[in-house]
Amino acid sequence: MRTPICIKLGCELPIFAFSHCRDVVVEVTKAGGFGVLGASTFSPEQLETELCWIDEHVAGRPYGVDVIIPTRYDKQSEASTEHLEALIPDEHRAFMDKLLDDAGVPPLPADERERIHAAIVNGRGNMTPDGARRLLRVALNHPQVKLVVSALGSPPPDVVVELRERNVMVGAMCGKGEHAARHRAAGVQLIVAQGTEAGGHTGDIATMVLVPQVVEACGDEVAVLAAGGIAKGSQIAAALALGAQGVWCGSVWLGTRESELDPFEKEVLFETRTEDAVRRRARTGKPVRMIKSLLSEAWEQPGAPAYLPTPLQGILYNEAHARVVRAKRKDLYSFPVGQVVGMINEESSVRDVMYRLQLEYLDAIERLRQLSPAESED
Amino acid sequence: MRTPICIKLGCELPIFAFSHCRDVVVEVTKAGGFGVLGASTFSPEQLETELCWIDEHVAGRPYGVDVIIPTRYDKQSEASTEHLEALIPDEHRAFMDKLLDDAGVPPLPADERERIHAAIVNGRGNMTPDGARRLLRVALNHPQVKLVVSALGSPPPDVVVELRERNVMVGAMCGKGEHAARHRAAGVQLIVAQGTEAGGHTGDIATMVLVPQVVEACGDEVAVLAAGGIAKGSQIAAALALGAQGVWCGSVWLGTRESELDPFEKEVLFETRTEDAVRRRARTGKPVRMIKSLLSEAWEQPGAPAYLPTPLQGILYNEAHARVVRAKRKDLYSFPVGQVVGMINEESSVRDVMYRLQLEYLDAIERLRQLSPAESED
Repeated sequence: MRTPICIKLGCELPIFAFSHCRDVVVEVTKAGGFGVLGASTFSPEQLETELCWIDEHVAGRPYGVDVIIPTRYDKQSEASTEHLEALIPDEHRAFMDKLLDDAGVPPLPADERERIHAAIVNGRGNMTPDGARRLLRVALNHPQVKLVVSALGSPPPDVVVELRERNVMVGAMCGKGEHAARHRAAGVQLIVAQGTEAGGHTGDIATMVLVPQVVEACGDEVAVLAAGGIAKGSQIAAALALGAQGVWCGSVWLGTRESELDPFEKEVLFETRTEDAVRRRARTGKPVRMIKSLLSEAWEQPGAPAYLPTPLQGILYNEAHARVVRAKRKDLYSFPVGQVVGMINEESSVRDVMYRLQLEYLDAIERLRQLSPAESED
Repeated sequence: MRTPICIKLGCELPIFAFSHCRDVVVEVTKAGGFGVLGASTFSPEQLETELCWIDEHVAGRPYGVDVIIPTRYDKQSEASTEHLEALIPDEHRAFMDKLLDDAGVPPLPADERERIHAAIVNGRGNMTPDGARRLLRVALNHPQVKLVVSALGSPPPDVVVELRERNVMVGAMCGKGEHAARHRAAGVQLIVAQGTEAGGHTGDIATMVLVPQVVEACGDEVAVLAAGGIAKGSQIAAALALGAQGVWCGSVWLGTRESELDPFEKEVLFETRTEDAVRRRARTGKPVRMIKSLLSEAWEQPGAPAYLPTPLQGILYNEAHARVVRAKRKDLYSFPVGQVVGMINEESSVRDVMYRLQLEYLDAIERLRQLSPAESED
C-alpha cells in the first residue's frame, strides 16, 4: 500500500498515528508507519524532552508533530486561567459539583488540583499565536520532524513559509470540502479529511462522503489522508479506494499496551459500543465525539445549564474528569474516541495492530481483485 | 464487480436502486443493476399498476419491492386519519400555519388537500400488519419480483416463510451491528447496512464503521449491501473493500431525468451542499436526513413546540410540504436526501449514472491495483 506520500515523507506505510503518547509514536514509526505526536498539551520544555526521547528510539526515521496554531490573535486566549475561572458562572460550577458529589466522587486533593490547573495553563498557553510558535521552534530543532499538522484551520503564512523552507511538510485537518480549497490556497501540502465518525472535535460529514470531495478539491499537488472510521485493514483499503493516499488513526492506539490510558480507562474503552461514541459539547463547549457517560449526558438533560463557550466549558470539565478518573468511576468516565471503539475489545500492542492492519488490507485487496479479474489487462 | 449476490438474484451489477419512481426502477434494472420500488405509499391497486408497468419494461429481468412490515399489531396505526388528526394539538397546527402564512405561502386548494390526505391514508394503511400483507400479496403475483426488503425491523416469521417458499429473497435494513444478528436469526438473507450519511430515516453510525460490523455479524450466509454515502464508483469500490457484496443507493437517482422530482425540486437538489443534508425530526417525529430549510429549522428553534410522535408529526408535515412544493418556495423546501447530495449537481439520466459508476469503479480498482502490484502472486 505504498503511496506517493510515503515516498515524499520517507516511511513504508501510509498509516499515520495521531497520539499524545510518545511510545505509540515510536512504535508506529518503527513498524513502518508515521507517528504524529499531539503536542499542544505539553510545555515547550516537556515537548523538548518528548522529542529527544522519540529521536533516540526511532533510529533515524521521520515522524510528525500536531499543534494548534491560531491564525488570529485572540485576546481571551491570552487571559490568565485565574481570570477565566472567574468567568465560569456559579450555576455551572454548582451543577458539576452537585453531580459528582451526589454520585459520591471525592473532590481532588489540593496538589492534584494544582497539577490539573498547571496542565490547563500549559495547554491554553500553547494555543496562543506566540505559544504555538514556541512549540514549533522546539519541533524544528529536531530534524526528524518531517511533518507539522495544524489541528485547527490553515496555518498562518509565516508558519507555512518557515516549514516549507526547512523542508518540513505542512498538514492541516479538514471536515468540509470547502475548507480543503482554503488549505490548499494557504500552501498546505497534506490534508487530513476527518469524518464525523472520528473521535474528538468532529464535523457532521461522514468519511465516505468527505474524502472524495476533499480529494477532488485538492487536485494532484496536495495529498489527502482519511481520518474517522479507520481501525481495520479493510477500512484502509476503502480509504485508498476513495482516493486518499493514506489513513490517519487515533482511537485504535488507545487500546494498545503502549497507550497513555491506564488499565481502568482501557477497561471502559474495551466495553464501549460504537453507538456509545457520541458527539457532545460537555468536554469543550464544541461537539466532541466521546464515550457516553453520566457526565456527558447530564449536560444534555432538560434543566441543565447551557454549555459555556470554549475555553470555559473545558476548564470546568477538566477538573471533573480528573475527579472521575481518580475515583475510577466507569459510569461517569468519558474520553474522546471514534465510532471504531466498538471494534477495539482487548489489549494489543502497536506492532500487532500494525501487522493486523496490513494483513486485513491485503485480504480486502485480494477480495476486490477476485471480483474484477479481467480488468488487469486494461 | 459481479459479486455472489448478483449471481443469486440474476443481475449483472450489485448496484441496488431504491426509488419510489417506476422509471428509475426500470432503467436501473435494464442497465444491469437491481431496481427496488418503494411500495409503502401506494394502494394495492396502484402497486399492481406500477408492477405491471415495470414487468412490461424490464424484459424479464428481476427486480425488488421495499415495504414496511410491522411485526406487532399496533392499535394506533389502525386508527383512522381523521381520528389521528384530532390528536394533533392546536399549538402545533398553529405553529406550522403561522410559519407558512407569515412566509406568504398560500393554503392548499380543497381538492389538493384531499389528495394529500388520501395519500396519507394509503400510506398509513399500508403500515399496518394487514395492509403490508395486502401489498405483499400484490408483489408476489409478479414472478419477476425476486427480492422483498423490510424497511423497518425484521419481517415477521410468516412473511419470511412465504417469501422463502416462493424463492423470493428476504431483505432488511440495519443501522447497528447488533440488529444484524437479529435479522439473521429471523431468516433474513440480505441486509442493507445503512450509515448515518444516508437520506431518510437513519441512525448515528457511519457506513465506514457499520459495514464491517454488519459483515462480521452476518457470516457467509447473509449478503450485506452498503447504503449511505454511495454516489460515485470509488464509493462502490470502498463499500466492496469493507466486505459488502454491493451497494444500495437512493439519492443519486433523484437528480436523473427519470426521477419523480419536478424541475423546481431538482433545482433545490442540485444547489444543496453536503452540510445542508441534516438529520431533523420535523418530517416524521424521528430523525430523517433531509435538506435543511426554513421549515426543517423552525422546529429546532427555542420556543418551537416539541416534536409530535410518529405518525402525528408526519401528518402535520405532509400538508405543509405540499403547500411549499405548490408555491415553489426554495427557502422552505426540504426532501429526504443523503450527504452525497453535494455530489449531485446537474441532471443526468439513469443510464449515464450507471455508466459513470462503473467507469469510476474501474478507476478506483486500477488505482488500488497499482499500489499493490506484487501481491497478485500470493
